[in-house]
Amino acid sequence: MPGPELRFKVGDLVRITLSNTSARAHSIHLHGITSLAQSMDGVPHASLAVLPGEKYTYTFVATEAGTHMYHCHVETNLHLDMGMYGTLIVEPRDGQRVWKQDHVLMLDEWDSRQDPDQLPHRATPNYFLANGKSYPLIPDLKIPQGEVHLIRLLNIGGAVHSMHLHGTHFLVVAKDGQDLPHPYKADTILLGPGERYDLLVKGRDGSFPLHDHIPQHGTNDGVDPGGMHLMVVGGPELRADGTPVPGPAPITTTPRFPGLTCRQRAGRSRWP
Amino acid sequence: MPGPELRFKVGDLVRITLSNTSARAHSIHLHGITSLAQSMDGVPHASLAVLPGEKYTYTFVATEAGTHMYHCHVETNLHLDMGMYGTLIVEPRDGQRVWKQDHVLMLDEWDSRQDPDQLPHRATPNYFLANGKSYPLIPDLKIPQGEVHLIRLLNIGGAVHSMHLHGTHFLVVAKDGQDLPHPYKADTILLGPGERYDLLVKGRDGSFPLHDHIPQHGTNDGVDPGGMHLMVVGGPELRADGTPVPGPAPITTTPRFPGLTCRQRAGRSRWP
Amino acid sequence: MPGPELRFKVGDLVRITLSNTSARAHSIHLHGITSLAQSMDGVPHASLAVLPGEKYTYTFVATEAGTHMYHCHVETNLHLDMGMYGTLIVEPRDGQRVWKQDHVLMLDEWDSRQDPDQLPHRATPNYFLANGKSYPLIPDLKIPQGEVHLIRLLNIGGAVHSMHLHGTHFLVVAKDGQDLPHPYKADTILLGPGERYDLLVKGRDGSFPLHDHIPQHGTNDGVDPGGMHLMVVGGPELRADGTPVPGPAPITTTPRFPGLTCRQRAGRSRWP
Repeated sequence: MPGPELRFKVGDLVRITLSNTSARAHSIHLHGITSLAQSMDGVPHASLAVLPGEKYTYTFVATEAGTHMYHCHVETNLHLDMGMYGTLIVEPRDGQRVWKQDHVLMLDEWDSRQDPDQLPHRATPNYFLANGKSYPLIPDLKIPQGEVHLIRLLNIGGAVHSMHLHGTHFLVVAKDGQDLPHPYKADTILLGPGERYDLLVKGRDGSFPLHDHIPQHGTNDGVDPGGMHLMVVGGPELRADGTPVPGPAPITTTPRFPGLTCRQRAGRSRWP
Repeated sequence: MPGPELRFKVGDLVRITLSNTSARAHSIHLHGITSLAQSMDGVPHASLAVLPGEKYTYTFVATEAGTHMYHCHVETNLHLDMGMYGTLIVEPRDGQRVWKQDHVLMLDEWDSRQDPDQLPHRATPNYFLANGKSYPLIPDLKIPQGEVHLIRLLNIGGAVHSMHLHGTHFLVVAKDGQDLPHPYKADTILLGPGERYDLLVKGRDGSFPLHDHIPQHGTNDGVDPGGMHLMVVGGPELRADGTPVPGPAPITTTPRFPGLTCRQRAGRSRWP
Repeated sequence: MPGPELRFKVGDLVRITLSNTSARAHSIHLHGITSLAQSMDGVPHASLAVLPGEKYTYTFVATEAGTHMYHCHVETNLHLDMGMYGTLIVEPRDGQRVWKQDHVLMLDEWDSRQDPDQLPHRATPNYFLANGKSYPLIPDLKIPQGEVHLIRLLNIGGAVHSMHLHGTHFLVVAKDGQDLPHPYKADTILLGPGERYDLLVKGRDGSFPLHDHIPQHGTNDGVDPGGMHLMVVGGPELRADGTPVPGPAPITTTPRFPGLTCRQRAGRSRWP
């Protein structure tokens, strides 16, 4: 979880075959793709569901570049919540873009105690994920100093997420795969479920967090730090004269922690 | 629930008389109307409340076109939550507009187990409503292929809602009854309580859902599908050559469902 | 709570010394300041935490005007939630601005039953605060009729807040301390945790509420009215001919309340 990232170019004729080898019906909804026929929309009561043991081929022409996603639309409250989703990116054919590289962060929540056979499904998430992982397991996002990269934020979960970047601001250039007429600067962006935002970030020196500013979403089952928190790494930390700060630096102060309570020393917090 | 839709034209002198035949005090707050005197604002501690057995006439001149609402502002946490609200639209006098027709979707949540006599009032909603109904009882929203219509989304509830349209995107043209200086395209829009967004949609062939992308809000008391989910209908589904897809089409595959579990067949899901 | 408001001018060299006299580690994160070195960022695993009995001086040059905040970033879910935060404003050096005065509203929630020694920390807020207070204890916000003031809204809490202004609309001119390229008009604004919005408001006659439109957030421990609700006061209420409405006016009707139930009369509601 999530499913594989799909990338196409504008004008591609896309064929995706869903082979349902499970015991439940499923479908693929291509969230954000607007050139679809109704039968390709993946909603059971209007399009169709793919029954256990059956196959169905979803076909469409990728007409517009942008950040989209795909997910099962059968019993959405259960199947989507259990992780049947992935990223779908359509890139411009000519390859013109101002960013050197892009990064995908698919945001979701997870209830580690849920039983998918218990219906109706009611999740009370205790883990908060980017690309299926939580801090400290989310890989660093590398944006070398001076380079302009694109961060594609997608909210496939059931809660809002308020993503905050330290150390610099970003330029919000697109929403839901559609270019904004007038990009704007910010350091925090609130995403509702189903929304996508594309952010341009210029790399700087050092390592700075990108994280959900909802405190509960910065924990793993209540233990802080955790959750939707990752590091944007631009290179070594620099002094004002441009020379690197020597040594393992400030972090070395962390281990000596005479004042912490037994509870904290016993490891209920990942930090220190 | 909700109360009747009120429509006026710019320049209208509006008089609304509240006759309180109930056993509790009530008021009318005209949410979004900015040409009001303080005494017309409906907030008990600054304006007034209309006592049981009394009458009060709210008077104002409709000075600006836009999508607004009205609701009781006495014990708001209880009275508003119990459904004392409605839509208030002010239309331009000259009738100039780019849309052929408009549609109103007033979003709310409902706790079917609440007892209004139990104070303090704490609702934990299990139903999610547009115009007082949930899927499959919300009427289709008809936007014939090629026609441009306006969808007025209003959030009168206590939760955010993240409305996603399938099959096409929309143009966000106004917020809180105020035209945006630069409309933007999207397929999902997050509404906080009290916010209104006006969306221009161009009709296409087929039937596509418009729904809250928060999975829990797509259920009726936890049973999926349900909740804030309705169909935008543009006409019959078309083939690439413009001819209709014959027959009842893909939906016919839905009834045959050999692979579902007993629990699902027993009807805990409305689908199939 | 909150901590003292900090105000600087663009170009100021700022030095803030944290003397940790408590039994837990703490830090200062300068939320929104982008000219920081990594070691000044206040995040324990990337920068440093200030141990009990130690001191650390945070140094930066205020490079951009805007509405920012500061807060402890150690065990954020606990320390931030317990109130270790404040407002940090950088003003333009030349003092050019269209508003006559500014007002700060720092939004937060509070769980009056929480025990900070009980870990993991899980808050279920029952009080909703602006500048550490809830209605009716939040001071009036005075914007004399005809004057243009700036309201700086900051969400340091863990929930979204949907702030609605009665009696007029506002112009949204900045987000996260960054000027918007195209300000827009609204009467309600949804803030995610960590977000800041700057609103221009032109004063009018009378007194009108500014409040969170989430009904639960308009209560004190469930009792309505309460919570994030304050009055914007422009002066006496005026008649259409510009003369003041005489006497204590409509509010005098509030005390006579024959129709209320015993429960309400017994004071479970602050109103009447």
